[in-house]
Amino acid sequence: MPRSGGIASMMRLPVQENTDGLDVCFVGVPLDSGASNRSGTRLGPRQIRQESCIIRAANHTLGAVPFEDVQVADVGDVSMNIYNLPEAVKQIKAAYDKLISNGCVPLTMGGDHTITYPILQAIKDKHGPVGLIHVDAHADINDVMLGAPIAHGTPFRRAVEYGCLDCSRVIQIGLRGSIYSLDDYQWALDQGFRVVTSKECWHKSLEPLMAEVRGMMGQGPVYISFDIDALDPSYAPGTGTPEIGGLTIYQALEILHGSAGLNIVGADVVEVSPPYDMAGTTALTAANLLFEMLSILPGVKRRQ
Amino acid sequence: MPRSGGIASMMRLPVQENTDGLDVCFVGVPLDSGASNRSGTRLGPRQIRQESCIIRAANHTLGAVPFEDVQVADVGDVSMNIYNLPEAVKQIKAAYDKLISNGCVPLTMGGDHTITYPILQAIKDKHGPVGLIHVDAHADINDVMLGAPIAHGTPFRRAVEYGCLDCSRVIQIGLRGSIYSLDDYQWALDQGFRVVTSKECWHKSLEPLMAEVRGMMGQGPVYISFDIDALDPSYAPGTGTPEIGGLTIYQALEILHGSAGLNIVGADVVEVSPPYDMAGTTALTAANLLFEMLSILPGVKRRQ
Amino acid sequence: MPRSGGIASMMRLPVQENTDGLDVCFVGVPLDSGASNRSGTRLGPRQIRQESCIIRAANHTLGAVPFEDVQVADVGDVSMNIYNLPEAVKQIKAAYDKLISNGCVPLTMGGDHTITYPILQAIKDKHGPVGLIHVDAHADINDVMLGAPIAHGTPFRRAVEYGCLDCSRVIQIGLRGSIYSLDDYQWALDQGFRVVTSKECWHKSLEPLMAEVRGMMGQGPVYISFDIDALDPSYAPGTGTPEIGGLTIYQALEILHGSAGLNIVGADVVEVSPPYDMAGTTALTAANLLFEMLSILPGVKRRQ
Amino acid sequence: MPRSGGIASMMRLPVQENTDGLDVCFVGVPLDSGASNRSGTRLGPRQIRQESCIIRAANHTLGAVPFEDVQVADVGDVSMNIYNLPEAVKQIKAAYDKLISNGCVPLTMGGDHTITYPILQAIKDKHGPVGLIHVDAHADINDVMLGAPIAHGTPFRRAVEYGCLDCSRVIQIGLRGSIYSLDDYQWALDQGFRVVTSKECWHKSLEPLMAEVRGMMGQGPVYISFDIDALDPSYAPGTGTPEIGGLTIYQALEILHGSAGLNIVGADVVEVSPPYDMAGTTALTAANLLFEMLSILPGVKRRQ
Amino acid sequence: MPRSGGIASMMRLPVQENTDGLDVCFVGVPLDSGASNRSGTRLGPRQIRQESCIIRAANHTLGAVPFEDVQVADVGDVSMNIYNLPEAVKQIKAAYDKLISNGCVPLTMGGDHTITYPILQAIKDKHGPVGLIHVDAHADINDVMLGAPIAHGTPFRRAVEYGCLDCSRVIQIGLRGSIYSLDDYQWALDQGFRVVTSKECWHKSLEPLMAEVRGMMGQGPVYISFDIDALDPSYAPGTGTPEIGGLTIYQALEILHGSAGLNIVGADVVEVSPPYDMAGTTALTAANLLFEMLSILPGVKRRQ
Amino acid sequence: MPRSGGIASMMRLPVQENTDGLDVCFVGVPLDSGASNRSGTRLGPRQIRQESCIIRAANHTLGAVPFEDVQVADVGDVSMNIYNLPEAVKQIKAAYDKLISNGCVPLTMGGDHTITYPILQAIKDKHGPVGLIHVDAHADINDVMLGAPIAHGTPFRRAVEYGCLDCSRVIQIGLRGSIYSLDDYQWALDQGFRVVTSKECWHKSLEPLMAEVRGMMGQGPVYISFDIDALDPSYAPGTGTPEIGGLTIYQALEILHGSAGLNIVGADVVEVSPPYDMAGTTALTAANLLFEMLSILPGVKRRQ
Repeated sequence: MPRSGGIASMMRLPVQENTDGLDVCFVGVPLDSGASNRSGTRLGPRQIRQESCIIRAANHTLGAVPFEDVQVADVGDVSMNIYNLPEAVKQIKAAYDKLISNGCVPLTMGGDHTITYPILQAIKDKHGPVGLIHVDAHADINDVMLGAPIAHGTPFRRAVEYGCLDCSRVIQIGLRGSIYSLDDYQWALDQGFRVVTSKECWHKSLEPLMAEVRGMMGQGPVYISFDIDALDPSYAPGTGTPEIGGLTIYQALEILHGSAGLNIVGADVVEVSPPYDMAGTTALTAANLLFEMLSILPGVKRRQ
Repeated sequence: MPRSGGIASMMRLPVQENTDGLDVCFVGVPLDSGASNRSGTRLGPRQIRQESCIIRAANHTLGAVPFEDVQVADVGDVSMNIYNLPEAVKQIKAAYDKLISNGCVPLTMGGDHTITYPILQAIKDKHGPVGLIHVDAHADINDVMLGAPIAHGTPFRRAVEYGCLDCSRVIQIGLRGSIYSLDDYQWALDQGFRVVTSKECWHKSLEPLMAEVRGMMGQGPVYISFDIDALDPSYAPGTGTPEIGGLTIYQALEILHGSAGLNIVGADVVEVSPPYDMAGTTALTAANLLFEMLSILPGVKRRQ
Repeated sequence: MPRSGGIASMMRLPVQENTDGLDVCFVGVPLDSGASNRSGTRLGPRQIRQESCIIRAANHTLGAVPFEDVQVADVGDVSMNIYNLPEAVKQIKAAYDKLISNGCVPLTMGGDHTITYPILQAIKDKHGPVGLIHVDAHADINDVMLGAPIAHGTPFRRAVEYGCLDCSRVIQIGLRGSIYSLDDYQWALDQGFRVVTSKECWHKSLEPLMAEVRGMMGQGPVYISFDIDALDPSYAPGTGTPEIGGLTIYQALEILHGSAGLNIVGADVVEVSPPYDMAGTTALTAANLLFEMLSILPGVKRRQ
Repeated sequence: MPRSGGIASMMRLPVQENTDGLDVCFVGVPLDSGASNRSGTRLGPRQIRQESCIIRAANHTLGAVPFEDVQVADVGDVSMNIYNLPEAVKQIKAAYDKLISNGCVPLTMGGDHTITYPILQAIKDKHGPVGLIHVDAHADINDVMLGAPIAHGTPFRRAVEYGCLDCSRVIQIGLRGSIYSLDDYQWALDQGFRVVTSKECWHKSLEPLMAEVRGMMGQGPVYISFDIDALDPSYAPGTGTPEIGGLTIYQALEILHGSAGLNIVGADVVEVSPPYDMAGTTALTAANLLFEMLSILPGVKRRQ
Repeated sequence: MPRSGGIASMMRLPVQENTDGLDVCFVGVPLDSGASNRSGTRLGPRQIRQESCIIRAANHTLGAVPFEDVQVADVGDVSMNIYNLPEAVKQIKAAYDKLISNGCVPLTMGGDHTITYPILQAIKDKHGPVGLIHVDAHADINDVMLGAPIAHGTPFRRAVEYGCLDCSRVIQIGLRGSIYSLDDYQWALDQGFRVVTSKECWHKSLEPLMAEVRGMMGQGPVYISFDIDALDPSYAPGTGTPEIGGLTIYQALEILHGSAGLNIVGADVVEVSPPYDMAGTTALTAANLLFEMLSILPGVKRRQ
Repeated sequence: MPRSGGIASMMRLPVQENTDGLDVCFVGVPLDSGASNRSGTRLGPRQIRQESCIIRAANHTLGAVPFEDVQVADVGDVSMNIYNLPEAVKQIKAAYDKLISNGCVPLTMGGDHTITYPILQAIKDKHGPVGLIHVDAHADINDVMLGAPIAHGTPFRRAVEYGCLDCSRVIQIGLRGSIYSLDDYQWALDQGFRVVTSKECWHKSLEPLMAEVRGMMGQGPVYISFDIDALDPSYAPGTGTPEIGGLTIYQALEILHGSAGLNIVGADVVEVSPPYDMAGTTALTAANLLFEMLSILPGVKRRQ
């Protein structure tokens, strides 16, 4: 089948309705009701699937052929009431409770960052508090946005409150941009998060940082949440709240390669907004990051 | 000042915070949380303002020079909680209560069609039930969408329930597209609405229809709600739920020209979604429709 | 499920690998190797599926609820060697032989117009020579293009040679544009085709023409081939060889509505080129035309 | 040669530096310094050439094969100082003086409408005052714009002052849009121009109008100036000052077809702005209108 | 107010007509008449304002909260005759004379680079000759372009002639691209400018360079002129004369951060061309660079 | 002539039909029939020419003024049957046999990478086996694609089979992306190719690598094939098979600068796909890379 043909499932994988028999699932959450600036991420999962059709079987850098080692399928998107964020959050939580009940690792396509809160709730209920590698331009730890406690700038505050995170094993990488107040990152530091601004990463390989991260995470369960706006807008124009001076794609890949060996129990790539992604490269990037995530999961062998 | 210069207020009008001293105001409601398909209308008001900068003073067709006859300004956008639709609806209602308390006629830039419900509430509280000229591809009379009573497909059902409409003076023009069930329009007919599908308009001038409408509306208060997707997508690609086979721009202008002389107490143009409006022509169309609406308001003279 | 969510199958229908148990199938042929000007139609099926997600269940104009009357699914795309047109044509023919062996009616998403030749071959082998309603800007009856007998400008010449067509029941509607030689349409006339140029349609309803067409087609088997460039570029910019002065969308719908009652054994919409369809309206139009085609198939009842 | 290949000369014609031996020349004037709203027409000639590569040899509607009857080539673009409009106007005039000194008919690709003034000067100096068929959304008869006498809104006022026009044989078709003052068109009427607003054309064939125009023009020399914004933005989004409610493409073609037989001494299509013409259809339209203009020139035979 | 709402003033600041009471003003100059390649910068100020709506109050890197330390507003755009560059230059000069008469620091949104000449004239008349940090792909020191002394490639030659610059305190950073002649940069060197080509910056932090620059500038008045095309096109596609191999955004930020402490009397970001900035990231970058400029102005404290 | 004006020949050079009297020619091969994912490269040559109009005479980095030292012209595009890849390959070979018969160095604008096979055949027949600097994301050494031996993923396997390459002098730089199997690069290594993945290049100058390459290539004839997708998508979004994590533009320029002094007998830039290159920066990049290639050819002097 030509790559431009066929039903656009994630990486042209089989589609199934639940996670029976799966080690790993790709799942979408087509939500943008939590966005504060430009919208459009509701179309993220569909566009990531479309661009993912070029993904092939083997990961040369990691020496991995993930589809040979783990059972993986596309389980479609979570259905929810996009007109009511608190209700949507509950519906997402319930959907993930079911998806991961058998230990299946969810690799999520967003959707705005609101969705990571209910995902982490489900992860916590299954696995207990997790370590978190949070790659993002924004800390997303606001208490409220326009008066609302649920929005795309609040998930990690809510997640802490719910007990989702092992705060001593949380790192935020790539923070930058104008902020509301000079102490915007203070709450994170107060929880014990490690905060690495984008500027600390300029002109550098992140391999040393990732060595540190591996030490920090140990063998406890880890979740990776990758907001595509962590990348500089030159790499990811198709997002709602781009901030200049971001991570390079090389650093993004180093973060994921450097996470190999960790006990990853879930991961997401969020905030891809197709209407601002004219050439499709942002969705393509997301699809590839998800392939890297798949390639580093427990159970996927390093063959070279 | 070159037309490409200056702060982009609506039609380059003065900006003021309230409607003191105004006969007419332009006001935006930057909401897209009520959209069911593609989002982006939250940027509608800003884009309409931008394209409106080409609007000049005189309306040749109508022989009108509205800025000479009525006091009009841009009062900016309504502030609201975009993360909570029911609350946003209340905030919009409250904002309009204030804007129209002195009888000022609001000309609204949407935003998705959800916003017409709270606007009509405020209009009703000020003027009593109104006649309605509703130009749209969709009837927007659903009871719920994805379980939610407030969304962009329900405003006119909610408006009837609130008593906003004089149902014998309601006409819906331009309806079309695939529908959920063959009796989708039945509820409207049951209320006494006049329903004119787009197909009834093909290849025709709407001047005869508008003569009928003027008779139907009489001298009672009238509100005009113009969903830009009433137009065929060839005229208005920049919208979230386009439907083929729509009204022509000539028919749209005939509808507005044919409404001259009515006792119009408010009007809106909604559902402009800038991310899908690459050349800006949809926003330009909205800006011009709003200029036509301004030109037919009570108090604006026919000078030729 | 929000309309922006879920795997993008055609009209969100179930996907199955073959036509077992189906009355009708949607099938894609993601080919652009036969294009002469701009390419990109290889992505047509995927984009049409994406935009089709807004299609709802009922067809108000026709009083039809097709999914209630016929079994229909999305059978995915035809696999073929896109690097070898003659071989691809054979592969498409073989695929359709199988798809329609049980009488299933194929509704095809192109792909460039080359594909209609092998589809018609399969149709002929199943049903015998068919009547043809060919809606297009171009006659597509060249003998060769750049020396090649198989390309998107030759399918109907090849189809006649193969005996696919009952030439007394062939009509071409919408022809226009600059042509190679003043007698370009002569070969069609010589076969007995009825040729209706776009100019003959200007400013007119096509309902009278369709009455004539229904008489011409009688109750014999009929195939409808709709090249999206039949439409004026204002309605369908996303195509490879647009020609100005084309059919309106109203006329296109009249052609399909006017074909209701015919013994349609297959139909296609071809030449949608997503890279030139920035706002998605061309693919949306194709999706809707396919919904109209579905709604007029034998077995679908007129309920109103 | 595939149509997507080869140096993009106009209609893939030979390129030569002057008009020696030519009956007709295509020539570009890549200027946008005279634009008042959005710029970009400086790239118009290049884009029109690019899209013109699909134009074939024969004009079916007119029964014409122009390249067989007249010698025609692409003479490239006029060189000028784009930083100094008055000087540019002089340079354009001088260039056209030379181009048409042998009676060659110039078919011009704009460029903003400023350029028609110096072209008409050269035409006048060669042929005396001419009749004018001016198709446009705007009258372009301002005295000054932002204080400048030379700009894209003033060419026809300047042309009258220079004596270029036989004012009793001037018609302006398609005028519309908001205007500065209700008497904006009065100056044109005062000169004796026939003014036909776009609204007078709605829902109508323009064949009757063109019969009248042919009578009005007689056998005297005629110039056709076609501003692409005469067309409704649905047909021509790629322009700097679009106005809704414009001519249809069918009417545009009727105007040109209806001009066949006139003593045309020059013609232009102006105001194509490629940055706003994402799918290239505006430039394609311009290329086709220029092909129609070529097809109606004196010396081109009606073969059918 | 949601960030997508409200009148798009620069950084959502108050708008006022003059600089009374202001320490700093944002001001636009919507000109593109001086462009040599692609146009469109006339829309730069409007687009920068639009994207600036995401800018928040605090600058984490610099520990600055500029709106607390200096009075700043948006004073709109300079009005000028865009059809006459020399006259426009005079009008800009006059406007800036007024804007800065009270010592207000102008932060300018271009517009093409022509505008920096009259701005520097006004700056010189107020402050005497200034040091200049000129970040650009092009030296912009041509004597004439197409015969014109005023254009976007000549401002710094003109500025030297007018005595605007303290030539021993001028640095040009980022120069590159094909040039007219191998000695194109010689005139700059002859004046005593420091010239740093982009290639000298590859793979490097510019912090060492900026230490040198701070030494070079001392405490005399300094102007910063930042042509967005200094950045590599990957960061800033939306400009008229992009050149490959440019500065990274990290280097751009280092230049501005490294200018903190200088006696900056004015700054600009020019050459943003919205029609080539599909995802808005170039305008967003400009808005952020202007926020950095604001954050380093004298009077803005380092709070961390 | 303004840069936006004139016939768009490569770098505004004269156009001639053959290579008589030329040392170097620019030539296009407008093919995309060999593409596996997104198409559109058939328009590459035309778009590269268009964007090349900004290229000026001198190369500052290299101290070269190539047009003074070598005779160079644009010889247009190769004509071929785009519907039959094997035949097209033969036609390209024949065309290049002729173009280079007099020793003229061809600088090719693609077109998809299929074209390098026949070019190398012609090069081999003229010059014998050559060294190859192959810059690409993909090794392009597949045996077949979808069953076809001729496609854009096979040229270098075919070239080896034909004896085009001196395999000890072949280097592939920039390889990356998901691959079919972990031993995808093994065939290349088996031939003796030097393989440098993109990851080996991250965060590094490639000057050391190029020193090595110069040693490897010696003074034997060398061909450079530059697939634009070697660059990271941030630099080159306009291509059919983008892969994240690619070379930077700085590295690309270092590769070409570092090839100065080699005995280059031909070079190409392929896989530019204009429909995905909204702002034109990919084509601009290709045009500049071709200017760098021209500047390093034997016979072009280093003047500084």
